[in-house]
Amino acid sequence: MAALRDTKPAGDFGRHGDDAVDLATRHLIQPWPVAGSAGAEARALIGEGDGIHITDGDGKRLIDGPAGMWCINVGHRREELARVMYEQAMQLSYNTPWYTMNAPSAELARRIADHAPGDLSHVFYTTGGSSAVETALRFMQFTNNVRGRREKKLILSRGGAYHGSTYLSASLNGRPRDRDWMDGADGLVVKLTAPNPFRRPARVSRKTFADFLVEEFRQTVEEIGAERIGAFVGEPIQASGGVIVPPDGYLKRIREICRANDILYVSDEVVTAFGRLGHVFASGEVFGLDPDMITFAKGVTSGYFPLGGVVISGRLLEELRKSNHPDAMFAHGLTYTSHPVGCAVALKNLDLLEDGILAHAREVAPYFQTQLKTLEALPLVGEVRGMGLMACVECVADRDSNNPLELDNAVGKRIDRHCHELGLLVRPLINMCVMSPPLIITCEQIDTMVAILREGISRTMDDLRKEGVWDG
Amino acid sequence: MAALRDTKPAGDFGRHGDDAVDLATRHLIQPWPVAGSAGAEARALIGEGDGIHITDGDGKRLIDGPAGMWCINVGHRREELARVMYEQAMQLSYNTPWYTMNAPSAELARRIADHAPGDLSHVFYTTGGSSAVETALRFMQFTNNVRGRREKKLILSRGGAYHGSTYLSASLNGRPRDRDWMDGADGLVVKLTAPNPFRRPARVSRKTFADFLVEEFRQTVEEIGAERIGAFVGEPIQASGGVIVPPDGYLKRIREICRANDILYVSDEVVTAFGRLGHVFASGEVFGLDPDMITFAKGVTSGYFPLGGVVISGRLLEELRKSNHPDAMFAHGLTYTSHPVGCAVALKNLDLLEDGILAHAREVAPYFQTQLKTLEALPLVGEVRGMGLMACVECVADRDSNNPLELDNAVGKRIDRHCHELGLLVRPLINMCVMSPPLIITCEQIDTMVAILREGISRTMDDLRKEGVWDG
Repeated sequence: MAALRDTKPAGDFGRHGDDAVDLATRHLIQPWPVAGSAGAEARALIGEGDGIHITDGDGKRLIDGPAGMWCINVGHRREELARVMYEQAMQLSYNTPWYTMNAPSAELARRIADHAPGDLSHVFYTTGGSSAVETALRFMQFTNNVRGRREKKLILSRGGAYHGSTYLSASLNGRPRDRDWMDGADGLVVKLTAPNPFRRPARVSRKTFADFLVEEFRQTVEEIGAERIGAFVGEPIQASGGVIVPPDGYLKRIREICRANDILYVSDEVVTAFGRLGHVFASGEVFGLDPDMITFAKGVTSGYFPLGGVVISGRLLEELRKSNHPDAMFAHGLTYTSHPVGCAVALKNLDLLEDGILAHAREVAPYFQTQLKTLEALPLVGEVRGMGLMACVECVADRDSNNPLELDNAVGKRIDRHCHELGLLVRPLINMCVMSPPLIITCEQIDTMVAILREGISRTMDDLRKEGVWDG
Repeated sequence: MAALRDTKPAGDFGRHGDDAVDLATRHLIQPWPVAGSAGAEARALIGEGDGIHITDGDGKRLIDGPAGMWCINVGHRREELARVMYEQAMQLSYNTPWYTMNAPSAELARRIADHAPGDLSHVFYTTGGSSAVETALRFMQFTNNVRGRREKKLILSRGGAYHGSTYLSASLNGRPRDRDWMDGADGLVVKLTAPNPFRRPARVSRKTFADFLVEEFRQTVEEIGAERIGAFVGEPIQASGGVIVPPDGYLKRIREICRANDILYVSDEVVTAFGRLGHVFASGEVFGLDPDMITFAKGVTSGYFPLGGVVISGRLLEELRKSNHPDAMFAHGLTYTSHPVGCAVALKNLDLLEDGILAHAREVAPYFQTQLKTLEALPLVGEVRGMGLMACVECVADRDSNNPLELDNAVGKRIDRHCHELGLLVRPLINMCVMSPPLIITCEQIDTMVAILREGISRTMDDLRKEGVWDG
């Protein structure tokens, strides 16, 4: 039999590519559509991926600026990952986790626990970030029911947050346009101010802003009553909110208030875990936190296979086992919990991260940040911020007020269009562009990326001036 | 390079197997644990799969009676599926569906639409059944918000139902023990009687029972008001509820009430689609239904890759596109929506189903049902029921009353233990055993399965008699 590498790619892109656009407009519903085009739109067709690059339907090669959706951490076309999918599928493609188990899921749980901070020792697997957050929250509800604290269920979240796309997880989301037309479990969630220093009140220092956030948190707990609050859920860096790096020390101070009030601290590391900040988990190594639970997804398989999960404190589980209701059932689990192929892919992906890619990410991160920072010289750019290999370029109409362009808050999309032409896919977010490339990016490739961004933003400035919507 | 088939399996079962049990008890949280052993239990270790068989940690070969979790439809170790995972991962392992798209997802959407009944023409992809149901419900909420019907949101569900394991989808579940210790969106859901003829009142015919169910549905809509009810969600056959085959004609009558009251009919085919009843979708071909939405998962990839979705009526989408709020955003979508590898696996899986496995399933189904039916000769068996390649053996203490064993409602687990020893994995459900083997099962293999079940149930009867808990 011929080696798999030599066989014709399954995508058979030539044949499918011709009519994929037509088929999509007739049969596919894209995520996050607007009502006016739901079920009748195509998006940029991508045919193949290789390293930090993807190739579009016209054969144009692009740097994958957002690494898919913050996830292709080890890069496209890693033969080791494709191979392990094949091998594990041939060995055992699936077993029901209700009555049985498999070895890769147990082995992966140990390795994840080894990397996790504090007493986080146990893993529950899901298929992605939304189901990971659902698991953390349902676990909080269940343990409080078992412990006779049925009123201790409210969840604290923040403006700018993104935690998922199921009814409960989406209720935590803090970006207004994610919620305008969607229902949510609003009675279960209390929202706090986004920890966004760029949007802090004028004439307030970062330190004073941090004090304000901490005080707001403390006051909220006091007013509502700790006996009614079950958990705080927060991304260490709010990713889809625009790569919001919180003020120094703020997260640790929130963690201490949670500990003092028996409120579970859930660190949502769906984006930041598995290398984005240079470590398997950022909570401990970057922010000095020891949360009660960490949710993860995306980078755990570099996007090759839908896997996510929660790492849970061993102490919490021990308390649960000692409870007065040993037969109480945590009626929670997905068909694809502990999927053997997903766990085998994650094991190999973790090998790759440990064997050099984490170290590489830590090494190139300062260069990535300083080079992107040079874009602040462009008058349309209000701030470039970030950490590790995630960053955001935020555009403003006026750098004194930091207000976004009033007449054009699709400036991110404009930049994206120019950059696409120049060979870079960016992730447009209203007036922002988010950059989170595969962790294997080199300094030379960072130079190319920044040069394209500079040109793309410059062209956008020219357009805006010509159209008379901006005079910066 | 050596052919992949000849390389050492990735599972490396010999090495991992030794300590997987130990690792699981220290680091893994299994789905559906009880409080007393959460995070400290191992389950039967499975090392490999092949055709309709799996092999456990002791090297014992077992028939996979439940086909994993109702999902390994084309069987274990299908080289075509493993190969397509490799090939697609090498071609394009992931692309963000937020700004881009891929060819396999568009092609699969067309093929799914071709098989779907009525005007179901568009597909939204998720990672499994729970997220498929979440999508259907959030779509209903969104469309009613856009259409200015913000009060039309209640969801009708039934006793015996199982629809998922996220906060909202789980709120629809109708089995009491799934809800005892779990929170739910109870205010959003109205529960109706389980359509279970086996548990209908004594001296009531199946026909009268169906009339009762339909009347209850009609009265409920009248009392609550159609203007407050957004959707009915129902499995054509309630699977995890114990393979409840509803009375003839009942589903079509419910569908008509929904149509007359502008209540969306969501047919949850996570279990029944992709061959379990001999067709890609059972709603139309088996039950003569044309729902507004069909949810699917499991069999769409035969469990090799987490994929699910909803097929949605083209008319509903057209109405949405024509609404007065074209910019209203359906803020919904998962990182792994439209995953290229999942869709490529599903395309190949659908080839296999169309190229013979569906026909085979239809051919062996009557033999499967009649052979299992012979188990009713055993005095512990109250009923054997089913359709296609799904069936349930329900045990009772007393066949006159049909009551389950009062002293022992773990009779399913007892039968499972004996059958495991004899070479068959069953899915124990309280006092029931559920059978849903891979669709490739032969008549000879059905004979073996039924013989083992007969012996396992006989041994269980002996045990129960010896222990004095049953005298049948």
